[in-house]
Amino acid sequence: MPDTISLHPDRALPSEPRLRDVAREIYHGTRDLPLVCLHGHVDASLFDRDEPFADPAALLVTPDHYVTRMLVSQGVAPEDLGVRRLDGGPFETDPRQIWRRFCEGWFLFRGTPSRFWLEHELVEVFGIDLVPSAETADAIFDALSERLADPACRPVSLLDRFGIELLSTTDPAQATLSDHRRLAEKGLGQRIIPTFRPDALVRLANPAWRQQVEQLAGVAALDTGDYVGYLAALRAQRQRFIAAGALAADHGHLTADSTPLSPGRAAAIYQRACAGEVTPDEARAFEAHMLFTFAQMSTDDGLVMQIHPGVARDHHSESFAVYGPDQGFDIPVRTEYTRALQPLLERFGRDPNFRAVLFTVDETTFSRELAPLAGVYPSIRLGAPWWFLDSPDGMRRFREAATETAGFYNTSGFVDDTRAFASIPARHDLSRRIDAGYLARLVCEHRLTADEAAETAVDLAYRLPLAAYARRS
Amino acid sequence: MPDTISLHPDRALPSEPRLRDVAREIYHGTRDLPLVCLHGHVDASLFDRDEPFADPAALLVTPDHYVTRMLVSQGVAPEDLGVRRLDGGPFETDPRQIWRRFCEGWFLFRGTPSRFWLEHELVEVFGIDLVPSAETADAIFDALSERLADPACRPVSLLDRFGIELLSTTDPAQATLSDHRRLAEKGLGQRIIPTFRPDALVRLANPAWRQQVEQLAGVAALDTGDYVGYLAALRAQRQRFIAAGALAADHGHLTADSTPLSPGRAAAIYQRACAGEVTPDEARAFEAHMLFTFAQMSTDDGLVMQIHPGVARDHHSESFAVYGPDQGFDIPVRTEYTRALQPLLERFGRDPNFRAVLFTVDETTFSRELAPLAGVYPSIRLGAPWWFLDSPDGMRRFREAATETAGFYNTSGFVDDTRAFASIPARHDLSRRIDAGYLARLVCEHRLTADEAAETAVDLAYRLPLAAYARRS
Amino acid sequence: MPDTISLHPDRALPSEPRLRDVAREIYHGTRDLPLVCLHGHVDASLFDRDEPFADPAALLVTPDHYVTRMLVSQGVAPEDLGVRRLDGGPFETDPRQIWRRFCEGWFLFRGTPSRFWLEHELVEVFGIDLVPSAETADAIFDALSERLADPACRPVSLLDRFGIELLSTTDPAQATLSDHRRLAEKGLGQRIIPTFRPDALVRLANPAWRQQVEQLAGVAALDTGDYVGYLAALRAQRQRFIAAGALAADHGHLTADSTPLSPGRAAAIYQRACAGEVTPDEARAFEAHMLFTFAQMSTDDGLVMQIHPGVARDHHSESFAVYGPDQGFDIPVRTEYTRALQPLLERFGRDPNFRAVLFTVDETTFSRELAPLAGVYPSIRLGAPWWFLDSPDGMRRFREAATETAGFYNTSGFVDDTRAFASIPARHDLSRRIDAGYLARLVCEHRLTADEAAETAVDLAYRLPLAAYARRS
Repeated sequence: MPDTISLHPDRALPSEPRLRDVAREIYHGTRDLPLVCLHGHVDASLFDRDEPFADPAALLVTPDHYVTRMLVSQGVAPEDLGVRRLDGGPFETDPRQIWRRFCEGWFLFRGTPSRFWLEHELVEVFGIDLVPSAETADAIFDALSERLADPACRPVSLLDRFGIELLSTTDPAQATLSDHRRLAEKGLGQRIIPTFRPDALVRLANPAWRQQVEQLAGVAALDTGDYVGYLAALRAQRQRFIAAGALAADHGHLTADSTPLSPGRAAAIYQRACAGEVTPDEARAFEAHMLFTFAQMSTDDGLVMQIHPGVARDHHSESFAVYGPDQGFDIPVRTEYTRALQPLLERFGRDPNFRAVLFTVDETTFSRELAPLAGVYPSIRLGAPWWFLDSPDGMRRFREAATETAGFYNTSGFVDDTRAFASIPARHDLSRRIDAGYLARLVCEHRLTADEAAETAVDLAYRLPLAAYARRS
Repeated sequence: MPDTISLHPDRALPSEPRLRDVAREIYHGTRDLPLVCLHGHVDASLFDRDEPFADPAALLVTPDHYVTRMLVSQGVAPEDLGVRRLDGGPFETDPRQIWRRFCEGWFLFRGTPSRFWLEHELVEVFGIDLVPSAETADAIFDALSERLADPACRPVSLLDRFGIELLSTTDPAQATLSDHRRLAEKGLGQRIIPTFRPDALVRLANPAWRQQVEQLAGVAALDTGDYVGYLAALRAQRQRFIAAGALAADHGHLTADSTPLSPGRAAAIYQRACAGEVTPDEARAFEAHMLFTFAQMSTDDGLVMQIHPGVARDHHSESFAVYGPDQGFDIPVRTEYTRALQPLLERFGRDPNFRAVLFTVDETTFSRELAPLAGVYPSIRLGAPWWFLDSPDGMRRFREAATETAGFYNTSGFVDDTRAFASIPARHDLSRRIDAGYLARLVCEHRLTADEAAETAVDLAYRLPLAAYARRS
Repeated sequence: MPDTISLHPDRALPSEPRLRDVAREIYHGTRDLPLVCLHGHVDASLFDRDEPFADPAALLVTPDHYVTRMLVSQGVAPEDLGVRRLDGGPFETDPRQIWRRFCEGWFLFRGTPSRFWLEHELVEVFGIDLVPSAETADAIFDALSERLADPACRPVSLLDRFGIELLSTTDPAQATLSDHRRLAEKGLGQRIIPTFRPDALVRLANPAWRQQVEQLAGVAALDTGDYVGYLAALRAQRQRFIAAGALAADHGHLTADSTPLSPGRAAAIYQRACAGEVTPDEARAFEAHMLFTFAQMSTDDGLVMQIHPGVARDHHSESFAVYGPDQGFDIPVRTEYTRALQPLLERFGRDPNFRAVLFTVDETTFSRELAPLAGVYPSIRLGAPWWFLDSPDGMRRFREAATETAGFYNTSGFVDDTRAFASIPARHDLSRRIDAGYLARLVCEHRLTADEAAETAVDLAYRLPLAAYARRS
């Protein structure tokens, strides 16, 4: 095996020479565009503190569930990768040991987007070109540690170096947004904006629900003891988010069901939840009702609604109990949109003040449901391929399945969904390469002119995300 | 952007030079074959009247829901594209204004089959090569208007120029077929034939059902007051269609369910429908029962059964109320065939007098259900990719998913599903190009000889549709 | 059409010259590796008897449902292909006639994997290069008959010539394994091993169930009159299989449901089945419970669990009654894994003594469910594309859909599922070519180095199947 990583300038472009030439030219027209990152999971406090990253494992391994799940799938225990055990059991605290385990498993990432992102990060962000392996683990660890100590590798500096024009965080609906306030005081308020995520507040059966609704009451200074107060508090918090620059709300329900309840029925279920007596059916009905209700709120206040259904979270209960959420044990399920979203679309689908961006991890819905919906409802945009589908072939299949029905201009353009801050440029870069390859094929098959392809590529990389997330009204 | 459309002779063929050479040769062997159009929605009266098309918008924009839905998806109102409001509200009546709106939205069609078809129509059918845009709209409108006034652009002349050997219309089961009778008198009766579509007569819960059943009674001169009379009238009308040259019946149910009822149960539900008392469950059960019953009729009289399930029609009720059906608001749903068709196939699947052609807009069923079914039941042919899937990549994926299990000879060959008459040649041409590309790949991967590919291409374009729709018995 | 079959050395490799060069080199590194065949349906008695194959039809046509179903789909009756009628009706007994019918239908196999396998068998295994047709049928029949009489074409000789290192048969759980015992006495015991298949013993509603459970009692010499005895007998037979070299158990349920019952409830249902009183719901619940129970047994004794759900067997009842099972009338259905396997994975998913290999004929689950599951649970491996998907494009789509989430090392490598012994080398060869093509694309798109691709190809062809099926504990 070669000893050094060589990032080919044409990587992830089509291999056929004629296609590649066209794709390269398209890609060069987007390569240096600013990054618009309107859905992410980087913490605002990262930029507020602006401290150096602790160590290579804390930067690239432990918090990245794409990376840990692959190692876990081959028998490594999460705690040996530094994942804290919530039961007080031991977990690895030596970053060098964690890093070694990661480097030993490097071959597992062959063919995965993680491999693409990690190579990009090592070489482009940190200037390290050693191929990870048991032999090179320590040398890479030392080199990376040295880079991380460099002020140029602090979060705010990287924000500039990465060319990030706009970055959304994802924040609980009951957040005080104090981090964002401090960022605004430092002049970063226009650049790092919050996203309103109320999921925890609509899951009535969740044991932590009451506590979180009480937090909402506290931060909104409104009584959430009944359903009317609850809605008022949600609306108040949306205004707080909007004042802090928010463009969007994010909704990660299990299904896309949007069947509304009568206000009386919703209020009664809410009351039962407050009394700890809600049934699973009631909780599900309430969640669907709230999707509809949030569409109403979005139509009123202009926050763009992001809908991310179809993931069975925490599939392995014991792992959830020991390691907590977001540890790689979330598994997609078949997802239905045509019927589930019908109530919402009947009411708001043609409303010029409403906008929803639909995401999926069930790619069968691209050609069957999502492109047909986005291809007629003016409120709907089809989001970028999400999560497991944010990958070279996943993105290619998305364009092939969606474009012929929805065109390009009913898609959101690229939206990364990043937890690992340093991987943001790699993700945008990969998306631009794959879109360039797809567009090049259209050009070489004489289905699009080269000029149109060049313009469309810029739209997908830059203009469309801004347009899709532009606040209505 | 270039100012003129240049239709590359190799468009929609694979870009890789070796593949393209092989594909081009295969395509050239099918390019000039006659067109067999055994499933369409062009009105027979168009040929009976044989008048010039009214104007460019009436020809290419307003009646084509592929075109209007794309413009609607970006915020244009259907009435501004000339779609008549059923509520008496205003709608655009100036074709030039409609045409301008279409030309301004031309970029939206990038990457869609509509773009391919429209370019083909403009250049090949009407000899106009200006790229539509706000600037060129008027010039194209004027040039097109001039062409449409030419007798060579009247429907019957185009029929010849297009090389259409056989064209099916789609007609309500209660049709008198007077248009077809007049066409027969003009010597076009062998060339333009009706298709028997009884969908409206089996939807018991539809408010218009009783009226349509009464029409059936009238035209068949039979009493449809009970179930036995209803069946007799349907059978009588099938004979009328057969006498007018019909080869097929068309069935557009929501699901493929074919569970039969006992005659007594069917009769009782029918009676309840006559009394306006049918429940949704009864209506659904009756619809499934009638799919089975129509298979029985097809086995008896030899009309080929076309089954088109899986579309949730009129997804947006308000738009349906204002604009009526077929305005782009039909959205596919997940569709099941293996279990749904089992009752029908248990009974008729191996009957040599039965033939069914299966269509889908749920492409997940190609490899999982439809190709396995068509690959064993002698009565079953797998129809061409339908509706949203009648597109370059959709057709390619269909061949890739279906051929390995069903082969080529259990597919129907190309079947267009056209509402826009002038797009028929473009649709056949695109299909021939895509099949040539697929076959070329098999040749270049040494999975098929060049001679076999050439023969297969002719079969797919011409011989198989004729064979699939040849009346049984 | 050409008269002779020319097996191109680069067949089924990508056509683009640069990709092909890389793919050819990768393929050459795996072409001559031994064959590991850990899931097959070749009868052990074939090798015990080691007699010449009877005739060309008995070798290549009658027993291969891929071949017969294609001919049946075009109107040939199964009995005319030599399939015995269970109702005592006549069936073709002249192999030459059967062979002629097959040769006349040769064009039907264009584009199918059967065509690839059959050409490979004719040319590579038997040295016959005439293209089958009505004209050549007799000549091929005669030449093949001559070859079959050659001692070099007897089963054990072919085992050597094919380079088969390890071959699993599939045996009913109640088998005595006497064939395997005799093979062991001949020194073939390490090479031909049984697989434990208990499906018939868990289908309580099957009329033959009681008889088979009694066979189990007899062979295990244990009383299966109650549930405890039944489990004990199953465990005893598993030990017998393990002693005979078995590595795996095989489970072909309709769904992947693995919901356990309480022991009391399971015992009660079992008792009702013994009394002939089980309901369909009880039978389904018991089947799901047994999937869970077999996972427990696998965790205890180390047999690898193969799970093959999602096929509606014997879709056409009359054909089943006349011809019996496995005659091509099995049709896939939509299959769900995420929820269905959750009970099993909750309990055994992270147990180091458990291993399950998951198969599917519903390729929508590759990216949505199976790769995400295999990409985190250490016990799970994703099996090779199965049945209708064991085809050039099916295998390519599998790699494209699964690799980006599961990587290569959570897949099983190639597993053939062969009934037709002589097709085994062709199937492995095709798989190696397709994997080489996929890996070549990764190399040419600079997503993998050439060295990595070469190593991965060997892993997929040889090392991973051995590793996936290595007995736990």
